[in-house]
Amino acid sequence: MAKVTAEEAMSMAIEEGFRGLGFVSPNPAVGCAILSAEDELIGLGYHKKYGEAHAEVNALNSVTEASKLKGAKVFVSLEPCAHEGKTPSCAKALAKLPIAEVHYALEDPNPLVAGKGLEILRQAGIRVIHNQADNHRAEALAEVFFTNMKQNRCFLALKVATSLDGQMALENGQSQWITGEKARAAVQVLRGHYDAVMVGVDTFLTDNPRLDSRAESFSSKTNYAIVIDRTGRGLASLQASNLLKPRPSEKVIWVTDSPEVSRFQVSALTGCFDPDGKLLLQKLTEALYQHHKISSVMVEGGRKLFAAMMTSDLCDRVYLFQSNKIIGRGRQWSSEIEVSNLDQSFKLSGVDRVELGDDQLITGRLRVST
Amino acid sequence: MAKVTAEEAMSMAIEEGFRGLGFVSPNPAVGCAILSAEDELIGLGYHKKYGEAHAEVNALNSVTEASKLKGAKVFVSLEPCAHEGKTPSCAKALAKLPIAEVHYALEDPNPLVAGKGLEILRQAGIRVIHNQADNHRAEALAEVFFTNMKQNRCFLALKVATSLDGQMALENGQSQWITGEKARAAVQVLRGHYDAVMVGVDTFLTDNPRLDSRAESFSSKTNYAIVIDRTGRGLASLQASNLLKPRPSEKVIWVTDSPEVSRFQVSALTGCFDPDGKLLLQKLTEALYQHHKISSVMVEGGRKLFAAMMTSDLCDRVYLFQSNKIIGRGRQWSSEIEVSNLDQSFKLSGVDRVELGDDQLITGRLRVST
Repeated sequence: MAKVTAEEAMSMAIEEGFRGLGFVSPNPAVGCAILSAEDELIGLGYHKKYGEAHAEVNALNSVTEASKLKGAKVFVSLEPCAHEGKTPSCAKALAKLPIAEVHYALEDPNPLVAGKGLEILRQAGIRVIHNQADNHRAEALAEVFFTNMKQNRCFLALKVATSLDGQMALENGQSQWITGEKARAAVQVLRGHYDAVMVGVDTFLTDNPRLDSRAESFSSKTNYAIVIDRTGRGLASLQASNLLKPRPSEKVIWVTDSPEVSRFQVSALTGCFDPDGKLLLQKLTEALYQHHKISSVMVEGGRKLFAAMMTSDLCDRVYLFQSNKIIGRGRQWSSEIEVSNLDQSFKLSGVDRVELGDDQLITGRLRVST
Repeated sequence: MAKVTAEEAMSMAIEEGFRGLGFVSPNPAVGCAILSAEDELIGLGYHKKYGEAHAEVNALNSVTEASKLKGAKVFVSLEPCAHEGKTPSCAKALAKLPIAEVHYALEDPNPLVAGKGLEILRQAGIRVIHNQADNHRAEALAEVFFTNMKQNRCFLALKVATSLDGQMALENGQSQWITGEKARAAVQVLRGHYDAVMVGVDTFLTDNPRLDSRAESFSSKTNYAIVIDRTGRGLASLQASNLLKPRPSEKVIWVTDSPEVSRFQVSALTGCFDPDGKLLLQKLTEALYQHHKISSVMVEGGRKLFAAMMTSDLCDRVYLFQSNKIIGRGRQWSSEIEVSNLDQSFKLSGVDRVELGDDQLITGRLRVST
């Protein structure tokens, strides 16, 4: 068997963790790899589903010869949990084993528990190593959980498909299809990764979208659909809309101040607008996380909602599906955003670029450039 | 010495050819690699400068032991020339050598000479092989020459630097700096690759650009600057402009119908507008190639000129320098282009994407999508 370095093992653990995305919320997605004392890969596992075994346990269960755990090295994308929750403490489980080292990429983001899992391991005589070999990926894997823990609100992502010259539709509104099949399939997977997909009422009325994931791997899952509609002018179209087709009505959340909403079989979320009718996005993200247990939301339009996210500093990640087509004058996805000086433009950091057929997915975290 | 495959040797020959870009016009840029009978690399060369030795000769001159040419394989990006011009025929020179094979990527584009170089080699008992291992790169290397030969006009490229959302400036006109240092350095190299850089009069008046290459490798070269200015309203600003700083006035070409131009010390090009004032771009590219010996032109603005190029099917290559900044509403580089149906949008083909710091250079050939 080939030897695996500590850097490679950490990358394997993190990549394994990505397999759980979409199924573990509100838990973090975590992956784990185990090397024997001779640096052979003997175990791999990830947290598969909320309420079920954690990554460490699944990785340990995949080890076929228990004797190989003597002097083994365990690699986890996140500090092993110290507390007993739905499942026993992973740190305590590891502490009982004859392993030599535990490598972790990120510390638990909750200041009340951070470091406690590591301390349990140290007390048991296990070497604890902060392995930052692939931290960029580890942070991407855990970003929803970190935002939830640190900011007590849901993680918010912006997704848009545009032409190479920044337009999401022609002037006449035509937008099917700016991007190709592979990009559209990737969108379906992304929807599965998120607890909810959100749009403004204009997008709801114009596109009549389903907002669910048609990716096969998420066929057992039903996500939330959220519509921002202060005055309730979309409600009349709700019953016949595509939103209700893939999900029960309580999984449709109408963010509105309209009293009309009580007449409809949907979850109403009120009080998220200021007296001028402006969306209170901070409040909305807190309510979705704290009252609806929604950890992550992907916003798919329209332009006003995009601008509200970006200017209120509540856009955690951007997914820009960019085609190789040039369409000229049209509907620019960012046209509701105004920047008066390039020093104040928005910048993607930690950018990943992935080719999807003729298209490209550009993704990164958003920050105001300095 | 490591063995080299025929595919690798062809790629080496092509990459070598790129070193001549900017210095060989109106000749094609060509590269050559030579393998011994034992498949060891024994020679490399490229066409360095117009009027001087061709790639094959330079590669042969780099071979230190002449005895190794027995049974050798010669790889060229373009069919060896059959005719005597400024230098002797390469095909005839190769035919005299004890080599076994000649691999070529592209046939000579001129229908009157195509195949003649290959025929000379075959007559001499040398195996001639069409090696298409890296044709995408070979075509990019020779694209200017092919356009010149086949269409009897100069090659036309569009270069623009934009934000991630397709804007080349803020609404207030600010555009410095949307892209970073590495992208700007790459623009300087690109300018060196082209015989001329062209702008519309508005860009001339607004930006007062130099349009020369400040890349060190091109310090010995002076390119042309071309301004499209039908009514001559930019002429009054010419004398004090930056255009004249790096170049003699005859290397400034004013495309105009204004009789005023005769009062200025620049090259005037008239008769390139129709009675309605529309630029006759086909005629312009023919005149620049046929009368001014300009093989290639890079257009750097403004939006009307971009639209004229793209809609008249005279945009041979696009260089899009795209930053990771989002700037919202602004000046979209393609806003003068109107597409009424996505089926008629413009599409980049043969796309290459290169990361330049935080920015990305996206380049490809243009075609109307089908």
